Amino acid sequence: MANSQQTAPFDYVIFGATGDLTMRKLLPALYNQLRVGHVPEEARIIGTARSSLSREEYINRAREALERFLPAQHQDNALIERFLKKVHYVTLDGTKTDHNWDELKAVLAQSPEDRIRVYYFSTAPQLFEAISENLNKHGFITAHSRVVLEKPIGTDSASARAINEGVSRFFSEGQIFRIDHYLGKETVQDIIALRFANPMINAVWSNEYIQSIQITAAETVGVEGRAAYYDTSGALRDMIQNHLLQVLSLCAMEAPADLSADSVRDAKVNVLKALRPIPEEKVASETVRAQYVKGALNGVDVPGYLEELGDTSNTETYAAMRAYIDTPRWKDVPFYIRTAKRSTQKVSEVVVTFKKSATALFGATPAANRLVIRLQPDEGFGLALNIKNPSSANFSLQNGSLSGKFAPADGSLIPDSYERLMLDAVRDYPVLFIRRDEVEAAWAWVEPTLNAWAANKAPMATYAAGSHGPDAARQFIASTGDEWHEDMAD
Amino acid sequence: MANSQQTAPFDYVIFGATGDLTMRKLLPALYNQLRVGHVPEEARIIGTARSSLSREEYINRAREALERFLPAQHQDNALIERFLKKVHYVTLDGTKTDHNWDELKAVLAQSPEDRIRVYYFSTAPQLFEAISENLNKHGFITAHSRVVLEKPIGTDSASARAINEGVSRFFSEGQIFRIDHYLGKETVQDIIALRFANPMINAVWSNEYIQSIQITAAETVGVEGRAAYYDTSGALRDMIQNHLLQVLSLCAMEAPADLSADSVRDAKVNVLKALRPIPEEKVASETVRAQYVKGALNGVDVPGYLEELGDTSNTETYAAMRAYIDTPRWKDVPFYIRTAKRSTQKVSEVVVTFKKSATALFGATPAANRLVIRLQPDEGFGLALNIKNPSSANFSLQNGSLSGKFAPADGSLIPDSYERLMLDAVRDYPVLFIRRDEVEAAWAWVEPTLNAWAANKAPMATYAAGSHGPDAARQFIASTGDEWHEDMAD
Repeated sequence: MANSQQTAPFDYVIFGATGDLTMRKLLPALYNQLRVGHVPEEARIIGTARSSLSREEYINRAREALERFLPAQHQDNALIERFLKKVHYVTLDGTKTDHNWDELKAVLAQSPEDRIRVYYFSTAPQLFEAISENLNKHGFITAHSRVVLEKPIGTDSASARAINEGVSRFFSEGQIFRIDHYLGKETVQDIIALRFANPMINAVWSNEYIQSIQITAAETVGVEGRAAYYDTSGALRDMIQNHLLQVLSLCAMEAPADLSADSVRDAKVNVLKALRPIPEEKVASETVRAQYVKGALNGVDVPGYLEELGDTSNTETYAAMRAYIDTPRWKDVPFYIRTAKRSTQKVSEVVVTFKKSATALFGATPAANRLVIRLQPDEGFGLALNIKNPSSANFSLQNGSLSGKFAPADGSLIPDSYERLMLDAVRDYPVLFIRRDEVEAAWAWVEPTLNAWAANKAPMATYAAGSHGPDAARQFIASTGDEWHEDMAD
Repeated sequence: MANSQQTAPFDYVIFGATGDLTMRKLLPALYNQLRVGHVPEEARIIGTARSSLSREEYINRAREALERFLPAQHQDNALIERFLKKVHYVTLDGTKTDHNWDELKAVLAQSPEDRIRVYYFSTAPQLFEAISENLNKHGFITAHSRVVLEKPIGTDSASARAINEGVSRFFSEGQIFRIDHYLGKETVQDIIALRFANPMINAVWSNEYIQSIQITAAETVGVEGRAAYYDTSGALRDMIQNHLLQVLSLCAMEAPADLSADSVRDAKVNVLKALRPIPEEKVASETVRAQYVKGALNGVDVPGYLEELGDTSNTETYAAMRAYIDTPRWKDVPFYIRTAKRSTQKVSEVVVTFKKSATALFGATPAANRLVIRLQPDEGFGLALNIKNPSSANFSLQNGSLSGKFAPADGSLIPDSYERLMLDAVRDYPVLFIRRDEVEAAWAWVEPTLNAWAANKAPMATYAAGSHGPDAARQFIASTGDEWHEDMAD
């Protein structure tokens, strides 16, 4: 199944190979890339974790994961077995210098010395430095090696810097692939295509035409079993500092010189650096935080966050921020960023509201044009325009919506973001990974808000589980003349 | 069934009331406007024609026409009978001074003197002056009277001027409603809404962004039983001079000061006057004419035009013209206007092709953005944009089309154009009717082409019935770097 998009042979070494992410995302992603012909036959996947498992036992877990997490139409027993032949397992605590490194060495030694090696750190971030140090000590870091770092890269500026420093003692920045699975979403990359490949859109992409941009990631799930972990993080750290600020960067960046990793990331980091700081004393007016209380979703009663946690908490499950970008293009254009757990529906989207026409031709002012880029689910985009109301004898208007899909032209499913990103690391194609300066600029911008919230300098609102969020968020956006997309008339 | 859009009471007097247009369009239009509550109970329809018919006989013909031509879901027997109670008939040759005028007078005298009267001339245009003269002589033209003139207004500049002069001896320009049913199409009016109520579209509506505009009206029907009449007219007179130049005017006009009749028509006539003349010696390169020869439509063999006519002919059934508008907005933007009988499919549309992006980000130049406004059938609009190809590991593009409908928000059918226009004449709302200077400017622009064709200064091409048109038309549009919409890749 040779394919022009097939990568060179590789050994993918996963730390944290028994974890949920590996089972749910990483193995299915590599399988799917084998299925479409992008993974060469020589490629191998080497799982490592502290659990003492035989290769056979690990392969059985892997098989179960594939059968559980692959879409039915992608499951092919023969192919699954072919994939599992590539899977190896080494029982190893990567943080311990004296551990099972020889066994890993023996497995890797079966490949030629110049084989591409990708070390995927799917572990707690505080372990990244120690694993890197041991990889180095035991001579595993070759000229053809790279490392993929899972989020979160820290919980604030200092911890993020410490993680970056720790890993960079052993890997050059060019070898470090900080993953943000939002960037692996085809729909997120479509922001680049829509903006720069379409003069009709590019022409109106500035404060001359744009009134505001909303970036939303809402989920219906609560924290359930993860309450203890989630309570150390919260909505802002979990979603905004990384995913949503990345989406904002793509929406707001100037045209990059080219689509090389450095050009794109230069353009993105310039946005993050131009974010107008929100000093602690303005956090109460420029942000909203909230916790869900008990409510109902699809008619089923669900408990509130504090009930799930079984404790008091100062951690938000809803966060909204108003960002301004101090560049000529975005002068006076508010960007609203929000994320929620236990929302009415699962939706990630970018909503670009254009300024209303100044025309007096139609009596009433025409409604604002609006571009909605749906990142997930129902990946697609829509444009709300004004057309003539054909039922009226006068020249009145009505909403005339255009809609389209982001689906592949051949009718196949949109690939999961990990599929793309895992092989990009093999290909040494880092454009969709986060550079160190981006991570640290994002933390620098959110930190005063985190601090103000920790010090209770802004109120903690509440919202019913299954609702769109707190009333405070409506007043918040209305204070700069906008409304949330779900409240809009169309 | 009172309705805020109901007109004042009126008497609609139709000359040519036994003709095909009256039966097929005018009576169903008035019925439908009664159905939706726009026609007041006092309103009457008074048919006149030379055929000696009783009122009862005429009402029977009208009933048959309604049952035949109304969409099934609009037929309501009780309502049809209520409508037919409004229908009167007077046997009258409108061109004869001494004829049955007294009977018409008696019918009209049943209404108050200040009743709105609309005289609808659905007769041969050379009769318009004589009918007007008789209406005047017998005192029928009151302060509340207007006249609707059916097309064609002439066959060239001189005959158009003669008709306009003849009618204007008895009616002021403000009383004359020259009908062009294309302007009654909701979708044609949507050109105004799309352009001026949507900053996203308005911003790119000039030669800075637009590469070319195609305006097409194609039919699958041939001339069939109308060959003898059609042979005196041809595609250019039948479709381009009137309908398609009106569509072009709406596409190209500057923003009118308001939507009053004079402002809109001032804006339109400025376009017609700015059309760059095509002198006779350039007609061979700037136009294409053709006749269909035998071919097949939906698998059924159909004869050629000359076979249907049974004679030789110098009349075109296909016409295409390249127009330039000498204004700053449209400098160097070609407008391609074409119409065809016996084409592959019935479609009227405006296709706006935007200039390609100059970006080098994506390797290959992205495809041109394109806005398609479908005037009929399947009334709607679509936008061809570039999105990312999700099947590619590189950043390649694919077509991502948006589409939308012009249908009423309440799910009802789009009203027929005559419905709107017939009551606009009652309402004294002439914005969707053609002013005299427009008719004459349009004739002035097409006349050199008509003359050159008559003198055989341009070749007569042929195309198979059921095809998109002659090869010459493809070469013609390619010579200025474009291609017809049906030949485009998407």
